[in-house]
Amino acid sequence: MYLVLHGPNLNLLGKREPEVYGRLTLADINQQLEELAAELEVELIIEQLNGEGEIVERIHQALEEEADGILINPAAYTHYSIAIRDALAGVELPTVEVHLSNIHAREEFRQQSVTASVAAGQISGLGIDSYLLGLRALVNL
Amino acid sequence: MYLVLHGPNLNLLGKREPEVYGRLTLADINQQLEELAAELEVELIIEQLNGEGEIVERIHQALEEEADGILINPAAYTHYSIAIRDALAGVELPTVEVHLSNIHAREEFRQQSVTASVAAGQISGLGIDSYLLGLRALVNL
Amino acid sequence: MYLVLHGPNLNLLGKREPEVYGRLTLADINQQLEELAAELEVELIIEQLNGEGEIVERIHQALEEEADGILINPAAYTHYSIAIRDALAGVELPTVEVHLSNIHAREEFRQQSVTASVAAGQISGLGIDSYLLGLRALVNL
Amino acid sequence: MYLVLHGPNLNLLGKREPEVYGRLTLADINQQLEELAAELEVELIIEQLNGEGEIVERIHQALEEEADGILINPAAYTHYSIAIRDALAGVELPTVEVHLSNIHAREEFRQQSVTASVAAGQISGLGIDSYLLGLRALVNL
Amino acid sequence: MYLVLHGPNLNLLGKREPEVYGRLTLADINQQLEELAAELEVELIIEQLNGEGEIVERIHQALEEEADGILINPAAYTHYSIAIRDALAGVELPTVEVHLSNIHAREEFRQQSVTASVAAGQISGLGIDSYLLGLRALVNL
Amino acid sequence: MYLVLHGPNLNLLGKREPEVYGRLTLADINQQLEELAAELEVELIIEQLNGEGEIVERIHQALEEEADGILINPAAYTHYSIAIRDALAGVELPTVEVHLSNIHAREEFRQQSVTASVAAGQISGLGIDSYLLGLRALVNL
Amino acid sequence: MYLVLHGPNLNLLGKREPEVYGRLTLADINQQLEELAAELEVELIIEQLNGEGEIVERIHQALEEEADGILINPAAYTHYSIAIRDALAGVELPTVEVHLSNIHAREEFRQQSVTASVAAGQISGLGIDSYLLGLRALVNL
Amino acid sequence: MYLVLHGPNLNLLGKREPEVYGRLTLADINQQLEELAAELEVELIIEQLNGEGEIVERIHQALEEEADGILINPAAYTHYSIAIRDALAGVELPTVEVHLSNIHAREEFRQQSVTASVAAGQISGLGIDSYLLGLRALVNL
Amino acid sequence: MYLVLHGPNLNLLGKREPEVYGRLTLADINQQLEELAAELEVELIIEQLNGEGEIVERIHQALEEEADGILINPAAYTHYSIAIRDALAGVELPTVEVHLSNIHAREEFRQQSVTASVAAGQISGLGIDSYLLGLRALVNL
Amino acid sequence: MYLVLHGPNLNLLGKREPEVYGRLTLADINQQLEELAAELEVELIIEQLNGEGEIVERIHQALEEEADGILINPAAYTHYSIAIRDALAGVELPTVEVHLSNIHAREEFRQQSVTASVAAGQISGLGIDSYLLGLRALVNL
Amino acid sequence: MYLVLHGPNLNLLGKREPEVYGRLTLADINQQLEELAAELEVELIIEQLNGEGEIVERIHQALEEEADGILINPAAYTHYSIAIRDALAGVELPTVEVHLSNIHAREEFRQQSVTASVAAGQISGLGIDSYLLGLRALVNL
Amino acid sequence: MYLVLHGPNLNLLGKREPEVYGRLTLADINQQLEELAAELEVELIIEQLNGEGEIVERIHQALEEEADGILINPAAYTHYSIAIRDALAGVELPTVEVHLSNIHAREEFRQQSVTASVAAGQISGLGIDSYLLGLRALVNL
Repeated sequence: MYLVLHGPNLNLLGKREPEVYGRLTLADINQQLEELAAELEVELIIEQLNGEGEIVERIHQALEEEADGILINPAAYTHYSIAIRDALAGVELPTVEVHLSNIHAREEFRQQSVTASVAAGQISGLGIDSYLLGLRALVNL
Repeated sequence: MYLVLHGPNLNLLGKREPEVYGRLTLADINQQLEELAAELEVELIIEQLNGEGEIVERIHQALEEEADGILINPAAYTHYSIAIRDALAGVELPTVEVHLSNIHAREEFRQQSVTASVAAGQISGLGIDSYLLGLRALVNL
Repeated sequence: MYLVLHGPNLNLLGKREPEVYGRLTLADINQQLEELAAELEVELIIEQLNGEGEIVERIHQALEEEADGILINPAAYTHYSIAIRDALAGVELPTVEVHLSNIHAREEFRQQSVTASVAAGQISGLGIDSYLLGLRALVNL
Repeated sequence: MYLVLHGPNLNLLGKREPEVYGRLTLADINQQLEELAAELEVELIIEQLNGEGEIVERIHQALEEEADGILINPAAYTHYSIAIRDALAGVELPTVEVHLSNIHAREEFRQQSVTASVAAGQISGLGIDSYLLGLRALVNL
Repeated sequence: MYLVLHGPNLNLLGKREPEVYGRLTLADINQQLEELAAELEVELIIEQLNGEGEIVERIHQALEEEADGILINPAAYTHYSIAIRDALAGVELPTVEVHLSNIHAREEFRQQSVTASVAAGQISGLGIDSYLLGLRALVNL
Repeated sequence: MYLVLHGPNLNLLGKREPEVYGRLTLADINQQLEELAAELEVELIIEQLNGEGEIVERIHQALEEEADGILINPAAYTHYSIAIRDALAGVELPTVEVHLSNIHAREEFRQQSVTASVAAGQISGLGIDSYLLGLRALVNL
Repeated sequence: MYLVLHGPNLNLLGKREPEVYGRLTLADINQQLEELAAELEVELIIEQLNGEGEIVERIHQALEEEADGILINPAAYTHYSIAIRDALAGVELPTVEVHLSNIHAREEFRQQSVTASVAAGQISGLGIDSYLLGLRALVNL
Repeated sequence: MYLVLHGPNLNLLGKREPEVYGRLTLADINQQLEELAAELEVELIIEQLNGEGEIVERIHQALEEEADGILINPAAYTHYSIAIRDALAGVELPTVEVHLSNIHAREEFRQQSVTASVAAGQISGLGIDSYLLGLRALVNL
Repeated sequence: MYLVLHGPNLNLLGKREPEVYGRLTLADINQQLEELAAELEVELIIEQLNGEGEIVERIHQALEEEADGILINPAAYTHYSIAIRDALAGVELPTVEVHLSNIHAREEFRQQSVTASVAAGQISGLGIDSYLLGLRALVNL
Repeated sequence: MYLVLHGPNLNLLGKREPEVYGRLTLADINQQLEELAAELEVELIIEQLNGEGEIVERIHQALEEEADGILINPAAYTHYSIAIRDALAGVELPTVEVHLSNIHAREEFRQQSVTASVAAGQISGLGIDSYLLGLRALVNL
Repeated sequence: MYLVLHGPNLNLLGKREPEVYGRLTLADINQQLEELAAELEVELIIEQLNGEGEIVERIHQALEEEADGILINPAAYTHYSIAIRDALAGVELPTVEVHLSNIHAREEFRQQSVTASVAAGQISGLGIDSYLLGLRALVNL
Repeated sequence: MYLVLHGPNLNLLGKREPEVYGRLTLADINQQLEELAAELEVELIIEQLNGEGEIVERIHQALEEEADGILINPAAYTHYSIAIRDALAGVELPTVEVHLSNIHAREEFRQQSVTASVAAGQISGLGIDSYLLGLRALVNL
């Protein structure tokens, strides 16, 4: 089983700021992830959480659930949440970090990631493909 | 309807550190805000929240409630919460940021605001007037 | 009596760069300030000055005039004039700093203020309301 | 009564990354703390919380419980949580900050503490002794 | 047709530093890319170049060849070659930047990318999957 | 009509520090500018001002005079006068910034220009030719 | 004889990004340079090179050809090529650096020049006039 | 003849902020300077100016008056006025910079001086003695 | 045997600056350390040294004396003495660093420690308890 | 009695680097200091020390000797010796810091002083007059 | 066999800037290197290359030639060429980096080396001896 | 006669941290230096000193002994001792700085040298060869 974690504000997807994030909703992304999971014959648990502590605890729970890996879009927390970084480092599960938009082409404070260094890798800027390719990569790790 | 959001630790107001924040309690502020709202003939929902994720979700809820604007004192989160910044940017509601104390006259780490740039404006240092004038401004936006 | 001081280039207001500063002229702002002053039953002296030294001296003069406070938009000088900061600190009159545009949402060099820390508070981003609310706050100090 | 607060990810202790944190579990630490408390004839309330807002509120609650002091390991939040700093400063209870590992010998971002300056002191790098000695110090304050 | 560009030193792949880059050779990567290209029914031109000027010119040539996109691993040049950045920006072809290793988990000077902001997106840390997923993403752009 | 504005200390030209600025006097420069203006069939107004506020006001006046452009050597103010920058941005007249000496080859604090970004272009290091070529460029804009 | 050196990507001129560089092609620039050279009765050798090493060697060759000076647009290399800086310093020929666009009004990394300090002067932001005026200046040095 | 130049806000001396600047007025300082001048058998011209441009021009005038040296307290301008620095460098008169308070023990932005490096020396923190000793030093240069 | 090393200026303890360091003298600290040592059945050698080189050599001597560990308060040297850091790293004896005052709550330059990273741990801010608890910790290492 | 402390390398004075420090020897300075002391009717103890620890201890000794003040040229230690700073702060004797050369006009690392903020004032750049005027100031404190 | 690699602009040696690099030509250096090689009974291949990519490829070729080591003067590339650094790290041949001039005594940007950390050691400032001693060291590695 | 100065902690050589400094003792190095000196027909005085002030004074003494040069390994002091830098600059003797380990491949704070710029050159990373080649270079200066 793989845990897919959407970070803060991603529930707004498709409703707001389409010039940055496109018109896709979170439901669209989740449906395409489920279809790909079926094709890859893996199971997914998908959640969207806005709280830093909740994300930390959801990551801990994945350890107890014996998840095979984590696909995470930490969104805003990417740039400062050492707590999420420590959670990912602590559970030692295979992890891929994804971003819908190209964080290297946005505000300067979005160009650093404190979480990426404890993931296996990072995919950014490819819209829904960031998630789909991230899942493919995660299954291959 | 306007949402008034008090950030972390503001529930301590008037009980502690009067040399920084004065003797006013949060209840005092809320009462004066309600009186001004009555005068301006607008409705208020007032909440105090300590969690970053909770504040993010309260802002999202304001979108669903079709709030006319948000008056927010992000307190400590002003200086590092990109998640709250993204929530405010995401809901695209008129927003005014307020601070009781003059953040420019305190510790250096309090002199930068990551949330102010997505608000219409910011008022700081005027005690309860920061809130009252902020509400006036918000209604005028 | 309260001194209202408009800093450099504000005489161009309404003539240029409306996308940043709006279509309001300085005369419009002054008229609304006078109306509010009448309502608040206070007297105003309003001036616009482009020179740093002139602003310093106008602030000194307010001390001799026994002004009750200063409402100042230091404009460009906000970001580097230690001389104006020292003048404000020296006369020890109640002061509110105002900005028409949201300085936190503009160029990085406009996000620091060397004058705000010696004012009671700062209001920015609310257009003419920055001035009007600033005057209300000043009278309440 | 003294409040012992374990910050985020400390529930993983002893399960993961023993090269950094040793093989001790949180239960081990709590048991030894209780034994020392018995010896020192003080009462403890011990909690582990992952959320920043929850920690802020637990600190507030200590004020209402009339706690005699707080022994806190803010873990990842040490390095950026101004909200926890403000909570500690706000309740004005005697506080000692502790860390199992030597934060000065780890990544550069772990070498600054935003919370330590509002505590009486800080103990780091001494494993479970950081907690035990911290409790002794707290009782002596 | 898609251009696959391997930057400097990638010809050493599999011969040296396996602890960083794995045992895969460039020929292995190219073969798997060709297989995927066949599956996706697209044509590839694959080149490895060590010179910055040569890479700039190869990108220009892609414009004349009417390439459908560029899959590029700029390797060391990622971190300082404004010339390659300008070339990518200048030809305005769909581009995906890939890295075998996780650049966020290596030396600090490898954590900034001057080229990524002119690409659609970036994939790093997933070994050969960085390339294969990058090609999938590029074809979908 | 074109306004030629010489900034602070340029009246000392040719009298002092010939190793930096050469032996040319301001009168020499002005004469050659007038000769070139005659050749280009344009009219010039030339002024030298030492005060920041005076320069700001002279720029404003150019707007009222319906000047066709401004040729400015802001001298020391180049490096910190946001007020002059705002004046140039405000009047929206074609502007060329010139410097006698090569500011890139002098002290580090002279290598940044806060005014150049609101001019069309900048010419430095070419002695009197900086002015003469600047005038040619201005007339062509 | 004067050497005119166009740096990397300038061969794309007029084909791409007209909002930054205008619609002029390199051939247009070269033709106008030749016409001005004829008027000034000097001879030109004009080259466009994308490689840093090639530019270094072309500068060396100018020394052997006993060129009278170098007119160079180092383009992207302006901001980091110490090798080109050393080549220009080494041959000790009169040099003028030119840029079509205003480098002070673009990305922050384009605002520093490592090559300008070894040139006599720099002209930027004046489009083709940067070149034409640069040649005039060079002939006058 | 020696020129004594008091910079901005020094006219407030003795009236305000005695905890920083003491109770001495500018008149007191000037009287003691005149007495010392008499003792040293030199003539003084003493002025207090608030404008940066006025100070620049007063320094120029000293050159025409063939002053023997300048004793200057640039006050706030010490920290950013490159224009005054250039004026002092330009006139090449013996100069001593003085400060009443110890600028090394005040705010961080007061600890750098852009003017001191073009003076012969600097005296700070010694109250009126900064001036009196400065005059002695100046006469000895 | 354990070596207790008091760094520079600690001999002044109790005589000066009681608002920072308390009224305790070094003799008081040493007596309490000896009492605790007796209780813990360990032997102490206690010294106070002001010279950096002397401290380096005293640390070397501890190696020859086959000390069981070092309890060190490097005082001012904490913040810059790489020589003491290298000495501690070189002798490879168990070491605990202690500070009477909370270095995180003092001047910014006191918040970094170059020596702590080569100690097992650091205790600061607890007055004499920093020493006593440090000795307990050292004996447990 | 006043202690005059010459820091490291000042014994070389007059023998080496006259372009920086002049031709005066330390003996010359000391003689003039003694003559001035006689004139001012105060007693001096003059020492030159190269070791940081020795300077710290000499300052402590001044406390025991009940010195009336310290005139110190910390030379190289000015820029990094927190130990000397702490010694000066600890003894709380009136102190004036002097420098022969203008530290503001030398290498950048010489422009910061860690010791000056705990002295009453600082005099630099006036050669032997820095010492003589410093003594006058010290006696007046 | 040992590869001796001279980086960009070293072919100008002895022709230009003798105040920095001396009067020695590259041929002189090569001859003395060959003589020393004969004495040490080793074989040399000596090349001078200006292009970064060419240097990278020459280093790769050394691997295929089974060179015993590399003596490299990366000249300007020392300070920014991560590509050359990666090439040296990739071939894993014994390497010594040499510089004719003392890079620590030149411009600040020449004081950092990105290549030295992957070499065994670095020799700078000793003129031709940097090369000759570097060869001795290389043969001893 | 040449002075060989070993800085702090080098007496520990071969006893500790062999992974950084190798197994060679200081006696081994000194013996090989003496053998080379015999071969080069020069005389050596070799000393190891841990104190900064002692090193300063030993350098002064070399001047009186009319030493022909100094071979110095300042060890930890390399990175911050301006006093040793000034001593070396003051005596104006030929100097070569050496380091056993490659300071460019260690902690960041070891990558800057404040002493190297006043030496003729620097050799690092070559173990005992750093000393032996340094002596050869010194004799050749």
